[in-house]
Amino acid sequence: MSKKLSGFPEWLPAQERVRQELIATIRRAFELHGYAPLTTRSVEPLSALLSKGGDTDKEIYVVKRLSDPPEKPADLGLHFDLTVPFARFVSENRGKLSFPFRRYQIQPAWRGERPQMGRYREFLQADIDVIGSENLHVRHDGEIVRLLAHTVALLPIPRVRLGVNNRKVLEGAYRALGVEDIVATLRAVDKIDKAGRDKVAEMLSTQGLDAAQVDGVLSLTEPDALSRSFDHPMYREGRAELDTVLAACDDVEGVVADLRIARGLDYYTGTVMEGVFPDHPECSTVCSGGRYDNLAGGKARLPGVGASIGVTRIMGYLDHLGLLPERPGSTAQVLVAVHSDDTRGSSEAVARSLRARGIAALVCHKAWGYGKQIGWADKNGIPYVWMPARDGGAHEVKDVRAGSQTPADPSSWRPSEG
Amino acid sequence: MSKKLSGFPEWLPAQERVRQELIATIRRAFELHGYAPLTTRSVEPLSALLSKGGDTDKEIYVVKRLSDPPEKPADLGLHFDLTVPFARFVSENRGKLSFPFRRYQIQPAWRGERPQMGRYREFLQADIDVIGSENLHVRHDGEIVRLLAHTVALLPIPRVRLGVNNRKVLEGAYRALGVEDIVATLRAVDKIDKAGRDKVAEMLSTQGLDAAQVDGVLSLTEPDALSRSFDHPMYREGRAELDTVLAACDDVEGVVADLRIARGLDYYTGTVMEGVFPDHPECSTVCSGGRYDNLAGGKARLPGVGASIGVTRIMGYLDHLGLLPERPGSTAQVLVAVHSDDTRGSSEAVARSLRARGIAALVCHKAWGYGKQIGWADKNGIPYVWMPARDGGAHEVKDVRAGSQTPADPSSWRPSEG
Repeated sequence: MSKKLSGFPEWLPAQERVRQELIATIRRAFELHGYAPLTTRSVEPLSALLSKGGDTDKEIYVVKRLSDPPEKPADLGLHFDLTVPFARFVSENRGKLSFPFRRYQIQPAWRGERPQMGRYREFLQADIDVIGSENLHVRHDGEIVRLLAHTVALLPIPRVRLGVNNRKVLEGAYRALGVEDIVATLRAVDKIDKAGRDKVAEMLSTQGLDAAQVDGVLSLTEPDALSRSFDHPMYREGRAELDTVLAACDDVEGVVADLRIARGLDYYTGTVMEGVFPDHPECSTVCSGGRYDNLAGGKARLPGVGASIGVTRIMGYLDHLGLLPERPGSTAQVLVAVHSDDTRGSSEAVARSLRARGIAALVCHKAWGYGKQIGWADKNGIPYVWMPARDGGAHEVKDVRAGSQTPADPSSWRPSEG
Repeated sequence: MSKKLSGFPEWLPAQERVRQELIATIRRAFELHGYAPLTTRSVEPLSALLSKGGDTDKEIYVVKRLSDPPEKPADLGLHFDLTVPFARFVSENRGKLSFPFRRYQIQPAWRGERPQMGRYREFLQADIDVIGSENLHVRHDGEIVRLLAHTVALLPIPRVRLGVNNRKVLEGAYRALGVEDIVATLRAVDKIDKAGRDKVAEMLSTQGLDAAQVDGVLSLTEPDALSRSFDHPMYREGRAELDTVLAACDDVEGVVADLRIARGLDYYTGTVMEGVFPDHPECSTVCSGGRYDNLAGGKARLPGVGASIGVTRIMGYLDHLGLLPERPGSTAQVLVAVHSDDTRGSSEAVARSLRARGIAALVCHKAWGYGKQIGWADKNGIPYVWMPARDGGAHEVKDVRAGSQTPADPSSWRPSEG
């Protein structure tokens, strides 16, 4: 990673190829499932960003023209997530869209937060959402969880554990226990990983819960929490939804019920999900999402469910885990060697023939001795070197890593890998 | 196009698919030729942007945290092109790169200019450059012109005419004619399309050129300009380079010599190129580039040659020319119909089978009558509807546009298109 400006990571070419592969794999998975691409502008009116909770914990970057007078207040800001622009886009173009509307969106977002591992000031998110008009069946919650789990399983990253919960399960259980301040209780329970069970019990008591209520609330953080049942209509509704979502994913590895997951208290209303690397507890959430009642907040309800994959965060973790390549990485699979400047034309012809069949090829820039050209290929991570035919002989191709060299035909040869 | 904020265009899903296709095609062409991907951060220090000619004609957007005190001057700005961040990246990472370094970069840039057709405040550029260390053979100029012409020819856009010139040809010819103020002369000649030949002749006279000099300068704007020759070493050097570049492209359609092209007077030093839609003269340049002496301006010389495709500008022209789809466009190729909610599972199984073979599929969200499900597919631009087998019968697939319906096997059927 090249990080000369804190919070704005950049990657060397070989690492950027990994990032591009993540993006391409995510895009392909989303498109295979019928999600349409969307790219919104990077800026939104500052007022819209502020009304969506910006600048409390999502520090906004404002944008203005350098030539504007200094006293003119900024009226634009960079979006801090992809949900605000998506909601605005759907509101503006509602009549041109067909519901349920499935879209994916892979774009940067910006937050002026203090940078740390996994938290950046400029970061790429890959979002999917399904939006209904007035209604959206809970089946789509299962669709999103399933697609998210399927997609992250395709990525060259550590194993992901995707925990699923339903906000109604927690709220219904709390209500069944007679707890009144649901949000305060959720906030306290959300701290259990960091603060520990005893500390949370103490917080709940301070909030006025009696011993039975504290026990009941904490029982929901146990691994066997789903074996308990609570007598409240909201609990039963939430359990039914959660069971539907889990059933939709019963053949997908890594999806588990986890009643400890709360997430986005002010936004999500039903299903919530959160993916982590269980083998690397020092890494935070890599993907998350949930169900919300109304995307755009307008009179016409647009209920939806969505998820987001933190691409930059994943790159940061891969870097932290030593899983990113460090050496230069050309995209070329073949370096076509040049015997002499007089025969460069025949090397060019070989390269064109290979490219015509989808094999990325580069002609060496210097007619060095072959050993030096092979060295240049190796230094640039190019796996094959092509030696064009000379004096009626055959073309030959060298596998740089294996060291083997074999005759080859430019119109039919293929690299053994991919 | 959805354009609620002037200069920040957004596209409906079917149009966005066209934009994604442009990007994917460009990316594939660049990678096939061994260009490595690079993505830089969106912001640069304001001082760096200003020193690279920002805010004279490239109005800079400054970026600051909303929580910063208002009197604190902004120290960051959004990049106005991809060259400034690329130069900075190469300077910072020089020791980790291998030269000649080929990279492509597809990213937005921002300029606070007055929006008009083809000019936006947020616009996507696709850049390629080859950078040498100390030296870079003119052969690479041919490589860039050739790759640019090849790439734009792959795009679903009107025919592109790629004009090529060499700044040394003009400067050498002007010097041979005894003209002293080269830049003023270039600036006057650059206006010939808009102002006309007589007006430019008048401007040149005012600048102190005599009649023979004016005739000589204007002769270079004629179609037969290359048939003339000028006795100056810089002219001969430029002609040799131009001839090399043209020879490298002699089998590429659309590449033509055009001595009227000047471009980037303060930046390019040799080859210059500029692509337009010759059949649509109301559209401006869609791609351009050239050779420069020193990318990063440091002590160690980094000569380079590059080109840039204006993706957003091309989208704007396609929109203007009525070449963008207007209807919704799902990415799904197949809508799998649902007979009843009880049999939804078998529809899901068909969709998974299709996706496993790379065919994008969606299961209908409602168990409507088949006619209504077919109508929903049509409305969403999905070309096929799959009717899963029932009661021991066969699966059938309907071609929505053709109206035909045939038996099909989910493990082997393929759409007839793409």
